[in-house]
Amino acid sequence: MTRPEARTLVLNGADNVAVALANLDVGTETREGVRLGKRVPKGHKFTIVPVSAGQPIMKFGQIIGFATMDLPAGEWVHEHNCDMGPLAGAFERDYDFCAGVTPTQFVPEAERATFQGYRRANGKVGTRNYVGILTSVNCSATVAKFMAEAINRSGILDDYPEIDGVVPFVHGTGCGMAGTGEGFDILKRTQWGYASNPNLASALLVGLGCEVFQIGRMKEIYGIEDGENFQTMTIQESGGTARIIEWGVERIKEMLPAAAKARRETIPASELTLALQCGGSDGYSGITANPALGVAADMLVAQGGTAILSETPEIYGAEHLLTRRAVSREVGEKLIERIHWWEDYTARNHGEMNNNPSPGNKLGGLTTILEKSLGAAAKGGMSPMTAVYEYAEPVREKGFVFMDTPGFDPVSATGQVAGGANILCFTTGRGSAYGCKPVPSIKLATNSDLYRRMTGDMDINCGDIVDGTMTVEEKGQEIFQTILRIASGEKSKSEALGYGDNEFVPWQVGAVM
Amino acid sequence: MTRPEARTLVLNGADNVAVALANLDVGTETREGVRLGKRVPKGHKFTIVPVSAGQPIMKFGQIIGFATMDLPAGEWVHEHNCDMGPLAGAFERDYDFCAGVTPTQFVPEAERATFQGYRRANGKVGTRNYVGILTSVNCSATVAKFMAEAINRSGILDDYPEIDGVVPFVHGTGCGMAGTGEGFDILKRTQWGYASNPNLASALLVGLGCEVFQIGRMKEIYGIEDGENFQTMTIQESGGTARIIEWGVERIKEMLPAAAKARRETIPASELTLALQCGGSDGYSGITANPALGVAADMLVAQGGTAILSETPEIYGAEHLLTRRAVSREVGEKLIERIHWWEDYTARNHGEMNNNPSPGNKLGGLTTILEKSLGAAAKGGMSPMTAVYEYAEPVREKGFVFMDTPGFDPVSATGQVAGGANILCFTTGRGSAYGCKPVPSIKLATNSDLYRRMTGDMDINCGDIVDGTMTVEEKGQEIFQTILRIASGEKSKSEALGYGDNEFVPWQVGAVM
Ligand SMILES: [Ca+2]
Ligand SMILES: [Ca+2]
Ligand SMILES: [Ca+2]
Ligand SMILES: [Ca+2]
Ligand SMILES: [Ca+2]
Repeated sequence: MTRPEARTLVLNGADNVAVALANLDVGTETREGVRLGKRVPKGHKFTIVPVSAGQPIMKFGQIIGFATMDLPAGEWVHEHNCDMGPLAGAFERDYDFCAGVTPTQFVPEAERATFQGYRRANGKVGTRNYVGILTSVNCSATVAKFMAEAINRSGILDDYPEIDGVVPFVHGTGCGMAGTGEGFDILKRTQWGYASNPNLASALLVGLGCEVFQIGRMKEIYGIEDGENFQTMTIQESGGTARIIEWGVERIKEMLPAAAKARRETIPASELTLALQCGGSDGYSGITANPALGVAADMLVAQGGTAILSETPEIYGAEHLLTRRAVSREVGEKLIERIHWWEDYTARNHGEMNNNPSPGNKLGGLTTILEKSLGAAAKGGMSPMTAVYEYAEPVREKGFVFMDTPGFDPVSATGQVAGGANILCFTTGRGSAYGCKPVPSIKLATNSDLYRRMTGDMDINCGDIVDGTMTVEEKGQEIFQTILRIASGEKSKSEALGYGDNEFVPWQVGAVM
Repeated sequence: MTRPEARTLVLNGADNVAVALANLDVGTETREGVRLGKRVPKGHKFTIVPVSAGQPIMKFGQIIGFATMDLPAGEWVHEHNCDMGPLAGAFERDYDFCAGVTPTQFVPEAERATFQGYRRANGKVGTRNYVGILTSVNCSATVAKFMAEAINRSGILDDYPEIDGVVPFVHGTGCGMAGTGEGFDILKRTQWGYASNPNLASALLVGLGCEVFQIGRMKEIYGIEDGENFQTMTIQESGGTARIIEWGVERIKEMLPAAAKARRETIPASELTLALQCGGSDGYSGITANPALGVAADMLVAQGGTAILSETPEIYGAEHLLTRRAVSREVGEKLIERIHWWEDYTARNHGEMNNNPSPGNKLGGLTTILEKSLGAAAKGGMSPMTAVYEYAEPVREKGFVFMDTPGFDPVSATGQVAGGANILCFTTGRGSAYGCKPVPSIKLATNSDLYRRMTGDMDINCGDIVDGTMTVEEKGQEIFQTILRIASGEKSKSEALGYGDNEFVPWQVGAVM
């Protein structure tokens, strides 16, 4: 079953190139109405209109480079005829703050989408209803796990069907670190961000007692007191392992009736905060799952909702494409400040920031750093960038926002969930297995092979964009509808599999002492 | 019940000061036969013989400072009359390699202690018989946990009483890191160190597939192939979560019969490799549990065994006391090289190395950085230092050795276990809760209050040294006998409580990308 019309893809109406979805021979007539002047390998691109020397090559609706010679329609575009332009350096450094802002066309109130969510007392909305056991330090990891096991095995949760589970958040830090500075601040924000994520009905924070990350200090900083929805205890004060488990289980049992009173109600989609992730990318990521997720992110923003793009190392080198979308110079400058922080962070750790296309990337058809970074950033859609946050900062602005995180999935998503994300979409080409309780993670396969191989892990197949049975736009619609369904309580694949108890990984910055 | 003779303590026969174990009034006659010329607060020290100006103050059998004036016997010694000496800088910098080596008096072969251990095919000896599930990356943490749960819940281990359990080792790294350099090398050594620790009969290493820490590369580096005792698999190759769990459980089940053939036999104590740890220290650590553990460490070394001191930040400033014990200049210089590495590591992370006594330390009676660091190093005893290792390097020399690790307990112990430790002793004053499967962790309370409060967690009370019912020497004997018993299969408190599934924390050095 050959479908010649399915072997090419134009990602955006503003593009002057299409992507070959198979190796295309010289002379092939494409559905864009051009005849190929050269062989175009799978994943590579060709002009669909003539492009004069010096004119921009447009993909993802954005500039990925400049023609170095006059190109007829149907010309293979790669390093031999496309570069960063004679002004490469200047273009790279021109942040052009706000120049690329296209105001969001909000969906009229009456037509807005809704989902079934949990409205919390503070007005925030959860998509799940968990009780959390947080840990201030690795030393209290085991007692937290034992408390959760004791509750989950006791059968008591059968009496509270409205509670999704009791989930321990354990990690490898909290001591052997400086008690001030950015490492400490990050952990502090992460812990309190989880405690106050609307997908947790209530939380117990368990410590050892003598750790650097003092629970009492955190409570002071945030002005928190123990109450119905938040409790704290330490092993040293409790008199040891057996006693703290017993007491912790008692306290959690006391928290359950209130947590179980939560009921789903109809909530506007504007209350969704969508974390965008990709991991195990492949050559399809930038042309299928990421652009489709970008469409869904733009749809959510048009509903008044929020989408968080992250993974700073993966947009490095194309940051001025985001600054152009910044709603203000201040927002754009915050991104640049974070980029400079990363340059220093990697340099002082004897590494470097380098997101240039690798030889493998180039073989796969990626020509410039812009094209590569845009493939990653495509999942953020085209909406104006309303805010830039540091890792695990509370996300307060609606719309499309950026949060500075590493690219490493569990660390990145932990920051986003701490920031208040209540739903997450994760694109993968190689096949990631990931969950981030208390937030549902929706997996988007970039290609049909992967989808078939790991159907038990994948929620959505974006490979049918390549197969030609669906457009990027249609796939974005499907993703958006899936987000609403899963936000309303339908389990994602990774939830059904039980992921999420081992992927809480706060970003560790600074020396381990 | 006053026991005046119990209120002071001389830590070593070479000492010219004793420690007050209670607030002692002016005029008190101590059991050392001196009359106090000043009030001596609890935890502080006083001369037991006259000391001339400029002469060293000896505690732990070592120099902790110099008298700044002539001191009669019975004089309170602190900052007002003791400092680092007129040559402070020079003394600090004089590594005096090998000058302080006292050759070990080995116990005659015929009188050597034994324990019941597992002799492995490669000659190494285990004190436990676990099957491990290692993970190359956080992305495979959940499937490893699920495999272990499936096995442990299936009841199949009832058929193999000689197997202590199937234990998953999960962590928060393995990707989002540089693929070369010290961070990668540390993780590589840690992983292979666990896989080859003699307390594991066999191991399965589970990965995702696309992570930076490639299993295939590790196998190549170490020349390992899959076999009866070591197997590898990835989620991406296996076709997803459900399948890899099924296949992993099958492979583990295939490994069990061979693992269950292991039998304990009589083994010389020289095959013990003792990891020394302290966490949650208090004012008693340096005068009770640490010196007593030092006695036990020296006893083990005299048996031909091995003791590993670590926690570099806690001996900082007193490194020349270890270089004096180095068996060669080369060994001593390796320690100094690591100290310089730490100065760079903390500086480039905007921190600093500083182990000076804090105001609280000084109130508690610690006068100099030497005294403070010696309190920590005391658990290493007095034996010659035969080798210095980097984090997670295989410990190949017998005797007293140093391994460079952070002070943070789980990270430090993870390095020691990777280095081949098969038993661990952990002193604590505040009350630590810690286990490090596959290695038994023995808890030593520094004071009786803690022991009473957390008896369920503490194996040995060193507080009876303060209570006057036991000497440091006798307590060291008790610790050594306990080590032999627990090495032979008796469960430590932390093992009985089930600790050890959440404390595998490889040292993360370098940027998280
Ligand atoms: Ca990523
Ligand atoms: Ca990611
Ligand atoms: Ca057994
Ligand atoms: Ca310590
Ligand atoms: Ca320690």
